[in-house]
Amino acid sequence: MLKIGIVGLGLIGGSLAVDLRSHDDIEVLGISHKLETCRQAEQQEIVDRAILLLNNGLSDEAQVNSLKDLDILFICTPIDLIIPTLKLFIEKDYLAPKTIVTDVGSVKNCIVKKASQLWDNFIGGHPMAGTEESGISAARANLFQNATYVFTPTKKTNETNLNILKNIAKNKLGSRVYECSPETHDRAVALISHAPVMISAALIKTCISENNEEVLKAAKQLASSGFRDTSRVGGGNPELGLMMAKNNRENVLRSLKQYQANLTEIIEAIEQEKWSDRENEKNLKKLLESTQRSRPDFLS
Amino acid sequence: MLKIGIVGLGLIGGSLAVDLRSHDDIEVLGISHKLETCRQAEQQEIVDRAILLLNNGLSDEAQVNSLKDLDILFICTPIDLIIPTLKLFIEKDYLAPKTIVTDVGSVKNCIVKKASQLWDNFIGGHPMAGTEESGISAARANLFQNATYVFTPTKKTNETNLNILKNIAKNKLGSRVYECSPETHDRAVALISHAPVMISAALIKTCISENNEEVLKAAKQLASSGFRDTSRVGGGNPELGLMMAKNNRENVLRSLKQYQANLTEIIEAIEQEKWSDRENEKNLKKLLESTQRSRPDFLS
Repeated sequence: MLKIGIVGLGLIGGSLAVDLRSHDDIEVLGISHKLETCRQAEQQEIVDRAILLLNNGLSDEAQVNSLKDLDILFICTPIDLIIPTLKLFIEKDYLAPKTIVTDVGSVKNCIVKKASQLWDNFIGGHPMAGTEESGISAARANLFQNATYVFTPTKKTNETNLNILKNIAKNKLGSRVYECSPETHDRAVALISHAPVMISAALIKTCISENNEEVLKAAKQLASSGFRDTSRVGGGNPELGLMMAKNNRENVLRSLKQYQANLTEIIEAIEQEKWSDRENEKNLKKLLESTQRSRPDFLS
Repeated sequence: MLKIGIVGLGLIGGSLAVDLRSHDDIEVLGISHKLETCRQAEQQEIVDRAILLLNNGLSDEAQVNSLKDLDILFICTPIDLIIPTLKLFIEKDYLAPKTIVTDVGSVKNCIVKKASQLWDNFIGGHPMAGTEESGISAARANLFQNATYVFTPTKKTNETNLNILKNIAKNKLGSRVYECSPETHDRAVALISHAPVMISAALIKTCISENNEEVLKAAKQLASSGFRDTSRVGGGNPELGLMMAKNNRENVLRSLKQYQANLTEIIEAIEQEKWSDRENEKNLKKLLESTQRSRPDFLS
């Protein structure tokens, strides 16, 4: 029997619990700082058992043995609580030395650096799944099916531990496992996930800043699927965008500056009416042909 | 019986024909420069009858009476053929003086200016509907249902004619009719449709230009729904993007420059770590809150 603990029973933690518990050879212990969440998780059989963990430790220290028993601990708290949570577990001596600790944070470098120093058996993870919802009520089965689950080992990572986590992601969650360094992960998600939030938000800002009232009114009426799609991530949860920018700041800035240079190139092509005629020069048609051709590479 | 002619039987012209012909009091004459399209339109009963119009005029000049009989002519050719098509009809004396001519081009100012000089009873139009497909095989019923159909009258526009077109759009196609000046239309679509194509294309360009191979490989694997949506219009038909930039050049440039200023503001907020603390200053949280709040105004 594999004993898995999950701290933080929100959308991701709760959904992990549902899928893991569906296997006969896994026992899931839920850990939350909200009593109501513990009750709901038990009542809805999302976990086998749930225990309450307050800021200063377990509400009932007699539960410590359940924690010491864990083979794996998933930390599924908001990103800024991952390190504080791990610190609490270590300071309170809640973990057995063998326990593999992993997290599900959407940035990896800063977390992996700190967590690896605190705990030898730490391996960073990032399941690329989610919905607009949050909280335990949003937990659902098969959230990770066919989604990419990234692990970000370092030189120090124990291979056996990494394989245990990869097997769980692949065989128990149905995810496609991808492995890269924490640095590579953070640069890649800055490009394809974090920068797009800012790029999309700047579009909405441009539309709402239109100072001609007739044009603004028409824009609101005429906007259709193109605007809907391009503006979606920029109109999402502000806390999430803020978290991306704060925790992956350098990579997001790097991507946005490269983006600005590319947009400037497009603007110049339009200004100078470089449409398609001159064969050996950069022109708008060539650029739009290359983006049409390349986009599917990112959507396999 | 209302006699309506449609030149150009592609996605828009063909779908217009399908919906208009479904009403007992409308007779639809299709006009195409491809014999095969004429045949298909008749065989599939998309039109009541189709006639062939070559670059130098009707293939059979005996058909001229069918044209002279029309109450309304919709020009549904590609945008750069709208004016040449209207010129041909006038030079060849194919139109009766009473015939109302309208078009479906996605830019209006340049077309309306020229067309109104050529034909008194011209009124610009733009049904905001479409799919990724093109050609007569893409024609389908109800394409315009609940879509916005914009008309762009000028001071010279005959009110009775305008009301005839508005009634058709509303009652025969099921569209929501919107009326504004050609200038307002072009500025609005630059904001919510044409600039987003360039903004989205620049994102794809930034991703494919990543020069670290590990990061590029990871980006391709990790890209999910956020990238999919933000990049959709930038990965579309290059000809369409080119047409927007060419025909609505000044407004697209204006929108893109305002966009660049807004993006620069976001970049500066991230660089200077203006997250959310300082109440009276611009900060990233405030901006993302305003974009989240305002986006639904454009999606009613």
